[in-house]
Amino acid sequence: HRNYRCTISYGKLNIPVYRVYAQPLTNITPIPESRFKGRPNTLFALLIDVEVFGNNFLPAYTEGDNRNVVATDSMKNFVLRQALNFEGSTIEALLIFLGQRFLSTYTQMEQIRLTTRELPFSPAQLPEKASTILFRREHGDFTTATMDFTRDTNQQPVITAHQCGRLQMELFKVTGSAFTHFVQDEYTTLPERMDRPLFIRLNVYWTYTDVTSLLTPDHAAYVASEQVRDLIQFVFDEFVSESIQHLVYEMGCRLLERFPQLATVTFDAQNHTRDLVVAAQEEEQIKVYTDPFTAFGNIHLTLSRTSEENQSEEPRL
Amino acid sequence: HRNYRCTISYGKLNIPVYRVYAQPLTNITPIPESRFKGRPNTLFALLIDVEVFGNNFLPAYTEGDNRNVVATDSMKNFVLRQALNFEGSTIEALLIFLGQRFLSTYTQMEQIRLTTRELPFSPAQLPEKASTILFRREHGDFTTATMDFTRDTNQQPVITAHQCGRLQMELFKVTGSAFTHFVQDEYTTLPERMDRPLFIRLNVYWTYTDVTSLLTPDHAAYVASEQVRDLIQFVFDEFVSESIQHLVYEMGCRLLERFPQLATVTFDAQNHTRDLVVAAQEEEQIKVYTDPFTAFGNIHLTLSRTSEENQSEEPRL
Ligand SMILES: Cn1c(=O)[nH]c2c(=O)[nH]c(=O)[nH]c21
Ligand SMILES: Cn1c(=O)[nH]c2c(=O)[nH]c(=O)[nH]c21
Repeated sequence: HRNYRCTISYGKLNIPVYRVYAQPLTNITPIPESRFKGRPNTLFALLIDVEVFGNNFLPAYTEGDNRNVVATDSMKNFVLRQALNFEGSTIEALLIFLGQRFLSTYTQMEQIRLTTRELPFSPAQLPEKASTILFRREHGDFTTATMDFTRDTNQQPVITAHQCGRLQMELFKVTGSAFTHFVQDEYTTLPERMDRPLFIRLNVYWTYTDVTSLLTPDHAAYVASEQVRDLIQFVFDEFVSESIQHLVYEMGCRLLERFPQLATVTFDAQNHTRDLVVAAQEEEQIKVYTDPFTAFGNIHLTLSRTSEENQSEEPRL
Repeated sequence: HRNYRCTISYGKLNIPVYRVYAQPLTNITPIPESRFKGRPNTLFALLIDVEVFGNNFLPAYTEGDNRNVVATDSMKNFVLRQALNFEGSTIEALLIFLGQRFLSTYTQMEQIRLTTRELPFSPAQLPEKASTILFRREHGDFTTATMDFTRDTNQQPVITAHQCGRLQMELFKVTGSAFTHFVQDEYTTLPERMDRPLFIRLNVYWTYTDVTSLLTPDHAAYVASEQVRDLIQFVFDEFVSESIQHLVYEMGCRLLERFPQLATVTFDAQNHTRDLVVAAQEEEQIKVYTDPFTAFGNIHLTLSRTSEENQSEEPRL
């Protein structure tokens, strides 16, 4: 009776953290595709998710015994209060700091996954300078990261997985994108297009070959998501693609070439190309587009370095 | 140069299909927890996602060569036109029908994943009867399913994975839920509660031991998502839980006991319990609650039958 296998986890989603006067991000290695050099971190705002894995809280499920349940409300308090002690300057460093503290505080937690998304704010532009105290909430693309922690045989916290990302980029290129020579059959109504107004929504993710690149206070090997965003924009502007597939492959190769410290890059690209209504008779590049049919294409790519150096040990924290 | 490993897929998301006068769903096996007996399917409305896997369209990524790319626009046309030929009465049967047709039509597709979510409509209630032609859009919980197809060594389509579900249930139980005896430490501010107004958002998923239960036109072994919903509501109403963990475990066991044809059930339950403002002095059960802090608990459980019978072959279609 009731002899089932259980896979369990629980936690808190969406913990809002507004830490002011965090350490500025400096010392990152510049790349030619981006003018990004760092960030003041005066307002360091994000949402954090906590997910706990393990077996010792199984009696909460099977018997209603909560003695090994850290209330998710307490997890929220823990994250908020510990954020005051954070001395780093990146969202990944914050996750590492919190993961370490969670595992050293709660023996009840065997494994923990922390995920965060930035709540982007930029300094308000004043006539002469950027404000240092007033910030404007932005609702475009944003940075994300997720990290898994466990204990090694010496009970020391280790990172077992990580992924960084930039989500919900929205980029519209008015000319310089094709889609032709695809399969033609009785279900084909789409015309071939030598030039189309390519509008994509893009999520990009990356992992490091050696996650210790994220552990050092020195940011020489750190890849800022703003640099990734700028490189992607640079490639999109320049590259005449035959499809979104072609475009994301080019973006991925350029990212792996530019950042030798990365092991993988992943793209999810949605096709939101607009529909043509009318073009000006005299000046052909002047056109009116409108919203397309609601179904949209979705293109996925993960590129991984094939070399051996790709395998790294789980780093002790 | 550019010697990277590629993982690729592409497809169409959100294809809206409104098929009218589909076959009614009949012959399902009733359960004591539910009065659900079937559905007319006069308006069979859903959104469909198509995702194609394989290697032969890799040149689209690496070289901009689209000769093996079935345009996602054609996939959309294919789904819409084939929906006219559908003779089944469940969303799973529609996915199987479409998966089979896709693989027999397009040699370019090596594997395909189809996902759907119902767009729920219910018959408008007239004074004397339910309308047979007017339907009211509902925006609550809904049915979902996802299915993976490939070809076997004889080039016949087979199902390699499936999952059914009911998503976004929202259930508020005003009394009869506890949360006590959890870990107490310096981060604990939550009071112990013998009775709380438990409000959850719930996604539930299930798989069959033998997916051929979904293939037969006879629905004796079919689990209607309305039955799952009703059983879950029945258990929630009756069971005094010590936590959401405790509650979903009870729901899961009751589902596996009631439906011996199921192999697994999975729950994602969000805690949206409301905050108490004030209780009436004389009649203590009269209270006012308001919305809680925006972070919310999230409880996960997968229950699997441990018996051997759990392993089934990939069924030929
Ligand atoms: C417009 N369009 C389709 O219909 N399919 C596809 C595809 O696979 N890739 C594209 O870049 N565009 C496109
Ligand atoms: C209110 N609450 C928490 O803070 N944590 C938890 C938990 O793990 N489970 C609950 O049912 N409720 C709850």
